[in-house]
Amino acid sequence: MGTVDFWCEWAWFGGDRPASGVLVGARDGRIESIVTGTPTPPRRSRILRGLTLHGVANGHSHAFHRALRGRTHGGRGDFWMWREAMYRVASVLDPELYHRLARAVYAEMVESGYTAVGEFHYLHHPLGGGRYRDPNVMGEALIAAAAEAGIRLTLLDTLYLHGGLGEHGYEPLSLPQARFGDESAEAWTERVGRFDPGSDARMGVAAHSVRAVDPRSLEVVATLARERKLVVHAHLSEQPAENTAAMFNHGLTPTGMMARAGLLGRDFTAVHATHLSSDDIELLGSSESTVCMCPTTEADLGDGVGPSARLLSAGARLCVGSDSHAVVDPFTEARSIELNRRLVDGVRGVHHVTDLARALTNDGYRSLGHLAPDGGPWDPFAIGAPCDLVTVGLNSVRLAGHGPRALLPAVLFSATASDVTDVVIDARVVVAEGRHVRIDAAAELATVLDDLWNRDW
Amino acid sequence: MGTVDFWCEWAWFGGDRPASGVLVGARDGRIESIVTGTPTPPRRSRILRGLTLHGVANGHSHAFHRALRGRTHGGRGDFWMWREAMYRVASVLDPELYHRLARAVYAEMVESGYTAVGEFHYLHHPLGGGRYRDPNVMGEALIAAAAEAGIRLTLLDTLYLHGGLGEHGYEPLSLPQARFGDESAEAWTERVGRFDPGSDARMGVAAHSVRAVDPRSLEVVATLARERKLVVHAHLSEQPAENTAAMFNHGLTPTGMMARAGLLGRDFTAVHATHLSSDDIELLGSSESTVCMCPTTEADLGDGVGPSARLLSAGARLCVGSDSHAVVDPFTEARSIELNRRLVDGVRGVHHVTDLARALTNDGYRSLGHLAPDGGPWDPFAIGAPCDLVTVGLNSVRLAGHGPRALLPAVLFSATASDVTDVVIDARVVVAEGRHVRIDAAAELATVLDDLWNRDW
Repeated sequence: MGTVDFWCEWAWFGGDRPASGVLVGARDGRIESIVTGTPTPPRRSRILRGLTLHGVANGHSHAFHRALRGRTHGGRGDFWMWREAMYRVASVLDPELYHRLARAVYAEMVESGYTAVGEFHYLHHPLGGGRYRDPNVMGEALIAAAAEAGIRLTLLDTLYLHGGLGEHGYEPLSLPQARFGDESAEAWTERVGRFDPGSDARMGVAAHSVRAVDPRSLEVVATLARERKLVVHAHLSEQPAENTAAMFNHGLTPTGMMARAGLLGRDFTAVHATHLSSDDIELLGSSESTVCMCPTTEADLGDGVGPSARLLSAGARLCVGSDSHAVVDPFTEARSIELNRRLVDGVRGVHHVTDLARALTNDGYRSLGHLAPDGGPWDPFAIGAPCDLVTVGLNSVRLAGHGPRALLPAVLFSATASDVTDVVIDARVVVAEGRHVRIDAAAELATVLDDLWNRDW
Repeated sequence: MGTVDFWCEWAWFGGDRPASGVLVGARDGRIESIVTGTPTPPRRSRILRGLTLHGVANGHSHAFHRALRGRTHGGRGDFWMWREAMYRVASVLDPELYHRLARAVYAEMVESGYTAVGEFHYLHHPLGGGRYRDPNVMGEALIAAAAEAGIRLTLLDTLYLHGGLGEHGYEPLSLPQARFGDESAEAWTERVGRFDPGSDARMGVAAHSVRAVDPRSLEVVATLARERKLVVHAHLSEQPAENTAAMFNHGLTPTGMMARAGLLGRDFTAVHATHLSSDDIELLGSSESTVCMCPTTEADLGDGVGPSARLLSAGARLCVGSDSHAVVDPFTEARSIELNRRLVDGVRGVHHVTDLARALTNDGYRSLGHLAPDGGPWDPFAIGAPCDLVTVGLNSVRLAGHGPRALLPAVLFSATASDVTDVVIDARVVVAEGRHVRIDAAAELATVLDDLWNRDW
């Protein structure tokens, strides 16, 4: 790849407000130069009209959950009943179908304004147990899907050992869960050790949760992550029942268990972290862990509203994830962090708008392991950073009449995924005029979901 | 107007699920015939591909609040601080600017899928007090705006007498509030009595709230509504402070005050009804009152989550309103009723999907006074009902792969305003291919808001 220039009508750099007329030069997928105060686009530059954000991270994805969108609202239920439906979908996927589904889902993500995704991947093995001949074939299907869709993937290979944590300790895996499980933490370590993601993806690891991973195995995950310098994610306290089970069996909160296992720290992302004690918040904050909030999923599943502002104050970072993909829309995700707290707290402006924007961009990238050479997070638009850009058009009825002095809040509180016009990843144009340039995302979703739901289960 | 036929690929009739191949014949703006099971569109019929709902009502609008969208997220605050910003906008509007703003806002509403609106109108008088030569000129500006935008308007002429309810009783109107106030309930009655909305709008009335209208004046509103057979609306318990003030001064909850004044009943709509006692819920339910929830505004302003399911169980009806227009999206509004309760209650399926759809359609129309000849609510698609149709395309990435057996939940939980392709009001096509056929809504919004914000205040 040679050099390519992108001219942004407006671009948000991470300060208080966006700058106008920003020329971004890229080489080999990375930002090479930035010139502000360029009122007119130079010839041959790619014109990005509207507000451009640096890359937007989807910190938590289960690609196959997309199959359940709109299909589980028929009656009463709760998180645990929804999970049974999700297990049924998990049971029907083979590597070929999983690849097709993930490709369409990742294409939807890019069209909706995400440039990077963390796939929390636990659908490893064939139905009924055992291993595929290539034990990482399901992960490879995801890597191929992401490469075709053009999204930057961090594959979080997830350890899942137990079916749950009940009154009598850890429970065996159920039939659908057997696909998720390696025989032991050591077997998982061995398999992950042999997994070469190639140049199309970044590797990360995850412990599913304290429900699925016992304390000794949590330590194995922490050790592997430390030795291989990988980011590590885990579901944490999404439901009160998890807290109860952890206290009953281990005398610790799930956060306390993670801390004791040595997981917390700058490379650690706790997903959800909805039901936390004050001590939990202090542990996550003082360790500078990241918390990935998934507010649209947390609303869909009735999880509750997490202590986002207290976590930030304590020193934690925030990022967002679309998780179950009931909604795929980074702007809805970011503003829901604030709006859900307003509903609970009765006050406005619980978060600064720039904190919400940082969660979408810098801190999301950090959570997925996209770090600067010094190991710290990239500043947006830093020289050398990945050239990933998301442009939101300002001419829809939703944004019309925005204030130029309040452009960032206007976009974060009023834009929807349908307002994304252009997406650039690795300096390549992946979305133009609101459509993926190579994949008809809606058509592929329709075909693969029709195929999936019409199989014999 | 002659006859015109609309062929709906799918249409929701109010039963458990949509029907396919529905031919709707209209004459003079009303439905004349309905033929189901028509698999292919007849020649000359207008083809509506996707899911068509009968008219969708926006039960609560303050058109001018649209000017604040995205502009009040700069710092901390609460409902009362937001209200100060809103008063500043109110102070700059004259009939000409108000007409232009409302026309653009109503065009946005139609493009977003609303076919009818209830405008809770209290911006009656010139800044500084007194009356315009035509004392209803501001209301007439709204009527003209709605007629041009093609939306069905119920103008709820609102009584607003006092600046607030404090420790020492009712407070005088502040300078910005002086525009809202008639001298007395009798002066308001006299002005409303002279207000002829013509054929372009339906008349209704409102009492602003128990903060702005004293008990005796509430009775005047109830009497006028009863005598003239008008629907009557009122803000109710949006904030806990209103409840405290009502109890302190009157020994009753706001709902209790409304009940004592004779307001409750089938023609009454309580707007918000967020902070209710069990007795309040029983009063609203047993009187078969309607509650207009405005969940996107209630989140934006940190109001809280109202007891929607308990109200329905008690016998009340629900409808939705976009209120402050922070968001104009009927699907987001409807699903937020359910999703906000999930956040609070921790369970899914608190409401039946058809209850949410009824709130958008039948019960919204009832709240706005669009009643069948027997005085009851229209059934959707009943012969003789207004021919108002909203079609949602099913081919976006949001809806792709929906289940045909779960089409209504797919649309209510996954569609956004940007998925509305066609809107028919009074048997006339107002939106085609997602755009208003006569008004460039986004361009007019941009122009009028630019003008408004650049005036000397």
